Amino acid sequence: MSHNNFGHLFRVTTFGESHGPAIGCVVDGCPAGIPLAEADIQPFLDRRRPGQSRYTTQRQEADEVKILSGVFGDSDTPGQVTTGTPIALQILNTDQRSKDYEAIRYAYRPGHADYVYDAKYGVRDYRGGGRSSARETATRVAAGAIARKIVAGVTIRGALVQMGPHRIDRAAWDWDEVERNPFFCPDANAAETFAAYLDGVRKAGSSIGAVVEIVAEGAPVGWGAPLYGKLDADLAAALMSINAVKGVEIGDGFGAAELSGEANADEMRMGNDGRPLFLSNHAGGVLGGISTGQPIVARFAVKPTSSILKPRASVDRFGAEAEIVTKGRHDPCVGIRAVPVGEAMVACVLADHFLRHRAQQGDGPAWPFAR
Amino acid sequence: MSHNNFGHLFRVTTFGESHGPAIGCVVDGCPAGIPLAEADIQPFLDRRRPGQSRYTTQRQEADEVKILSGVFGDSDTPGQVTTGTPIALQILNTDQRSKDYEAIRYAYRPGHADYVYDAKYGVRDYRGGGRSSARETATRVAAGAIARKIVAGVTIRGALVQMGPHRIDRAAWDWDEVERNPFFCPDANAAETFAAYLDGVRKAGSSIGAVVEIVAEGAPVGWGAPLYGKLDADLAAALMSINAVKGVEIGDGFGAAELSGEANADEMRMGNDGRPLFLSNHAGGVLGGISTGQPIVARFAVKPTSSILKPRASVDRFGAEAEIVTKGRHDPCVGIRAVPVGEAMVACVLADHFLRHRAQQGDGPAWPFAR
Amino acid sequence: MSHNNFGHLFRVTTFGESHGPAIGCVVDGCPAGIPLAEADIQPFLDRRRPGQSRYTTQRQEADEVKILSGVFGDSDTPGQVTTGTPIALQILNTDQRSKDYEAIRYAYRPGHADYVYDAKYGVRDYRGGGRSSARETATRVAAGAIARKIVAGVTIRGALVQMGPHRIDRAAWDWDEVERNPFFCPDANAAETFAAYLDGVRKAGSSIGAVVEIVAEGAPVGWGAPLYGKLDADLAAALMSINAVKGVEIGDGFGAAELSGEANADEMRMGNDGRPLFLSNHAGGVLGGISTGQPIVARFAVKPTSSILKPRASVDRFGAEAEIVTKGRHDPCVGIRAVPVGEAMVACVLADHFLRHRAQQGDGPAWPFAR
Amino acid sequence: MSHNNFGHLFRVTTFGESHGPAIGCVVDGCPAGIPLAEADIQPFLDRRRPGQSRYTTQRQEADEVKILSGVFGDSDTPGQVTTGTPIALQILNTDQRSKDYEAIRYAYRPGHADYVYDAKYGVRDYRGGGRSSARETATRVAAGAIARKIVAGVTIRGALVQMGPHRIDRAAWDWDEVERNPFFCPDANAAETFAAYLDGVRKAGSSIGAVVEIVAEGAPVGWGAPLYGKLDADLAAALMSINAVKGVEIGDGFGAAELSGEANADEMRMGNDGRPLFLSNHAGGVLGGISTGQPIVARFAVKPTSSILKPRASVDRFGAEAEIVTKGRHDPCVGIRAVPVGEAMVACVLADHFLRHRAQQGDGPAWPFAR
Repeated sequence: MSHNNFGHLFRVTTFGESHGPAIGCVVDGCPAGIPLAEADIQPFLDRRRPGQSRYTTQRQEADEVKILSGVFGDSDTPGQVTTGTPIALQILNTDQRSKDYEAIRYAYRPGHADYVYDAKYGVRDYRGGGRSSARETATRVAAGAIARKIVAGVTIRGALVQMGPHRIDRAAWDWDEVERNPFFCPDANAAETFAAYLDGVRKAGSSIGAVVEIVAEGAPVGWGAPLYGKLDADLAAALMSINAVKGVEIGDGFGAAELSGEANADEMRMGNDGRPLFLSNHAGGVLGGISTGQPIVARFAVKPTSSILKPRASVDRFGAEAEIVTKGRHDPCVGIRAVPVGEAMVACVLADHFLRHRAQQGDGPAWPFAR
Repeated sequence: MSHNNFGHLFRVTTFGESHGPAIGCVVDGCPAGIPLAEADIQPFLDRRRPGQSRYTTQRQEADEVKILSGVFGDSDTPGQVTTGTPIALQILNTDQRSKDYEAIRYAYRPGHADYVYDAKYGVRDYRGGGRSSARETATRVAAGAIARKIVAGVTIRGALVQMGPHRIDRAAWDWDEVERNPFFCPDANAAETFAAYLDGVRKAGSSIGAVVEIVAEGAPVGWGAPLYGKLDADLAAALMSINAVKGVEIGDGFGAAELSGEANADEMRMGNDGRPLFLSNHAGGVLGGISTGQPIVARFAVKPTSSILKPRASVDRFGAEAEIVTKGRHDPCVGIRAVPVGEAMVACVLADHFLRHRAQQGDGPAWPFAR
Repeated sequence: MSHNNFGHLFRVTTFGESHGPAIGCVVDGCPAGIPLAEADIQPFLDRRRPGQSRYTTQRQEADEVKILSGVFGDSDTPGQVTTGTPIALQILNTDQRSKDYEAIRYAYRPGHADYVYDAKYGVRDYRGGGRSSARETATRVAAGAIARKIVAGVTIRGALVQMGPHRIDRAAWDWDEVERNPFFCPDANAAETFAAYLDGVRKAGSSIGAVVEIVAEGAPVGWGAPLYGKLDADLAAALMSINAVKGVEIGDGFGAAELSGEANADEMRMGNDGRPLFLSNHAGGVLGGISTGQPIVARFAVKPTSSILKPRASVDRFGAEAEIVTKGRHDPCVGIRAVPVGEAMVACVLADHFLRHRAQQGDGPAWPFAR
Repeated sequence: MSHNNFGHLFRVTTFGESHGPAIGCVVDGCPAGIPLAEADIQPFLDRRRPGQSRYTTQRQEADEVKILSGVFGDSDTPGQVTTGTPIALQILNTDQRSKDYEAIRYAYRPGHADYVYDAKYGVRDYRGGGRSSARETATRVAAGAIARKIVAGVTIRGALVQMGPHRIDRAAWDWDEVERNPFFCPDANAAETFAAYLDGVRKAGSSIGAVVEIVAEGAPVGWGAPLYGKLDADLAAALMSINAVKGVEIGDGFGAAELSGEANADEMRMGNDGRPLFLSNHAGGVLGGISTGQPIVARFAVKPTSSILKPRASVDRFGAEAEIVTKGRHDPCVGIRAVPVGEAMVACVLADHFLRHRAQQGDGPAWPFAR
């Protein structure tokens, strides 16, 4: 990752601000011949789209994606496919209320990137957070939809597992439940708790943090590489690059600090398919930076939105002190909409590592490894 | 990060296995004219060096660094300085007992990278973990010593803040204490607890996880960049790339998930120096991927060593099931020696971002930012 | 350079096909605070625009550029400036006649990329050359306009110095003349020769090659780096990446193969400004991969357009042999419009190296270099 | 390419100066399981080694390569193979006469990188050219030997085709002759001409330029990519990065500027093997940045050595004017030893593009391309 792009072979470059004409991305390195139309991308954008419940920002954006390049179809090509050239995606900004941001035109929201942007660049698009707006994450989701097609055998799903002090009951985990509540919560009871709790937060003009978990099932053993090409290092960067993320874990994560060696080590037996089988997954599907074939499990912590109605002490760009109250339309728990974003980032990292593995090792080696 | 190098402008490429002739690295992009001799690097290697207490592996390695290129000194140059060309560093491997590893020649240690290396590459240097050995981290420490010289105004220090279930008392934090106990522990009482606890772990032939915290003080506001050039995303990748690391946090990290917006937002006032002053540091010195000028605080979780004397169920490369007991000389708490490694990685990331910021913005802008 | 982007710090990613909805690029890494509006870019596009004389393709494209992101202006910001975030540029495709390309829907134009695209990707947008169309060069020109602003002290100009067998008289070189004829030719007499010659080529349904020379004046000594960061290596890649280019020279280029050491070496004296002064410029402003402070001189050879009315033997994707005649609207000498493209590529490389130099060395060192 | 490394997936990082302890490189991204020992690399170094005839520098260097990492062999592994981890190669410097360079300690050789290094870095290792020494090219040759193993089906050979004003007779081209004369010249008569001519140059204390041609046979259609991942753009950069190179051509190169479209276009017929067959190779095996399956032909111009006995006007780092005569042991025609270096660079580029192609497209598509 550097500048505004990430990925080594499956490379995504994003652009755009909250209140400019459009946001978008260029997806480079996609294999040719993959069926791809707007309809393959739109459903993922729709999942992330704001304004779908009272628990997210009321900004109304169609978030309609348009493919500008990199695909081709004609009467000989049944459907439209990728051509191997860069795929440019564009989403127009439609629902902008720039005047909502007059209050922060010069003043810095505590906890927000306002101050550091000014300090670094000497200029900033204050409308809607500009480049630092969560709106940019729509382009990640769009890129992720393409990535999913490259690693079609991998199922990548995310869920909200904690909101403020409330955690889900992992024993109650039900992937189907994730699509049934407005929190992407896999535990129906917890979803109710979240609802009541977040209503209180929202009415108080406050906001709250959350933890998101992403699980990728179906990746084979062997993706990733030592030591700076580690799959988990790339996952960590990818997830930490999402707005408001302050922590990333793989497998047991910080919990591993409390484990003994024997408790942490995932024992192995031979499976019925003649391949090694793990008896547990403390590793979260990654050992030595390389996928083990088990589900890849990553979690990330999302801090509370800094745009709140509670007054906070701040300063402005002229050096005057001020009290800031941020009106406008903000997510009381930005972690909710981070779920599809996290999925997308994991998909992009996996697509990149699939291509990187194929580059170095082709189709080999295969079990048993002994020559 | 990709392959075996990391950094965009301050770029480090490492090489070497535990039981090959040497390990080393090439540090590329270092500015010219910086005084640099082996004596500037060796002390940092000595801090990481094994065999210095009964709490680390008893392998005895001099870890003597030799600079092979990139520096020059003559009678006109008072001392030796960097020339702006690549600096190659080499550390010979001296204390190798390859026969210790016969037991894992074909069998896979649960929790270790043995299996995935074989699965990916079809071949692996089983002696001492080969490329996956913690020995590689010596080269990171060496590179970090050079990075520190580039960001000489930044003080980068690390400490062990948790060992297994035992956490330090943060109120008792004393940086001087870190150098007085074999755990890099900043709390004298906790160090005693760690000692007793780890003696038990070691005698039981087990191992235990830990949490390391790195604090970088003195970095100015403005390093880092949105959105994929985020300082914290690069820190996350750099720390996650260290062997055995399973989680990374910036500032409050996962704790931020439990905070309200008003509790999390670091309020700002004007300081006596006419510059903005933060009243707290929940952000850990990074907002929107850019340094705030506050101390940069990163934490990472280190899992327990998987090479233990406790028998664990496993398989070998021929598909046979086995019980594994790993003899040899291993760290009962590899998190201890991860402290100087974590410092080094943070130093490298900061040096890289200092150069990246200087590239884009030169010396400007300066406060006040308003034109 | 890799995939569809180039540049290390000033990084350009381009996208788009000849007959898709739009072409464009994302310019990443641009310093903040640089005044930038469409009007700064459009004149360069207009110079490259087709259909301006009978000597270029008759396709009529407005080539109107739109900035989608990365700039900001308000009542406090006099004019619009770059914000340091990615600048996305878009140019709509307007004058497309896809049916012109039915003849090459399945057949491969000899000398064109048709065959290799199919062989690599298994699919290709045959309309107007798709991604391999010279139309993509418009995005390079747009990016170059931004690059010029970063290295505002450097004057970058190009000229057509050879068309087929006809070379200019270098003694007659007049930069003002370049803008006075449709060939960007710096020699008025040669321009007349070119005109008569190209009329014959065009009427014959043929095409012809050319040589373009780019001169960059005002770059200081010190840009570039040994050995794989060489300024001339990046120039070579950048110019060779332009469609139809088959050779690149710096300074005397292939002529240097015929020179003795004493003839080739540019002697040095002290100038009146107390700085070294070169007495000649065989080096073309680059020694050891680093700029000397003299004008940087690069030349590149452009092959003749492969889309011609002369029948050529070919095959199609089904393995049938065919005679190909390419109708449509093509440049009889694509080298002409390569002049502004070459200028743009040189500008981008220089901007990148300016930033890279500033990263590593800041403002130092300064003459005299002796400490 | 950037800094001191090149290649995207097959990545080579080199280090070392002429008069430091050692030079070397790290080769990253090599597939695992490839047999590799020093004996596979040494013959290529021996071909480049100086002091083998009176036509090259009399410096005596064993240029003995040592593999420090990235390979493994034991009783189960018949021979030693690559492990997929970074391969570090080291060559000790042994025959150094630093005092030869006292004359240029402060003074700048015209035509050499002395001045620009000082101007950029403020410091320089003047002994033997330091980092700018042709000695660095040994590491390229070593890396190239590994690259050849990755693209084992491709035969990569080079030859000297011009020395000063003397060109070979292409009709007399005989690859076997290349190994029979000290010039890598494929034309026996030309070799005699070169010998007599270079004796005169050498005795006059002068030097002379040359042109080298590299031919790679056996690469399939499909390597490379539009537009900034072009195979020929990478070849241009790789060859231009070799010391003293001032020009690069692919196929007809600058000659293409004089051709009509019909003369330049390589016509196609169906071959007996059912695959397309080209009737000529003006393109030099690359169209649209992608290999055509024909021989890949690249040429580069090497300027004369700037270290000559003829006195030249210069200045020193204190601003004094001087006459420079460079004693020491220099190549009268450095182009000769550039032949194995050019081969190595082409091998590295091809290996990189083979991996890049395999990443994106795997084993597909195959002829016929029509679905």
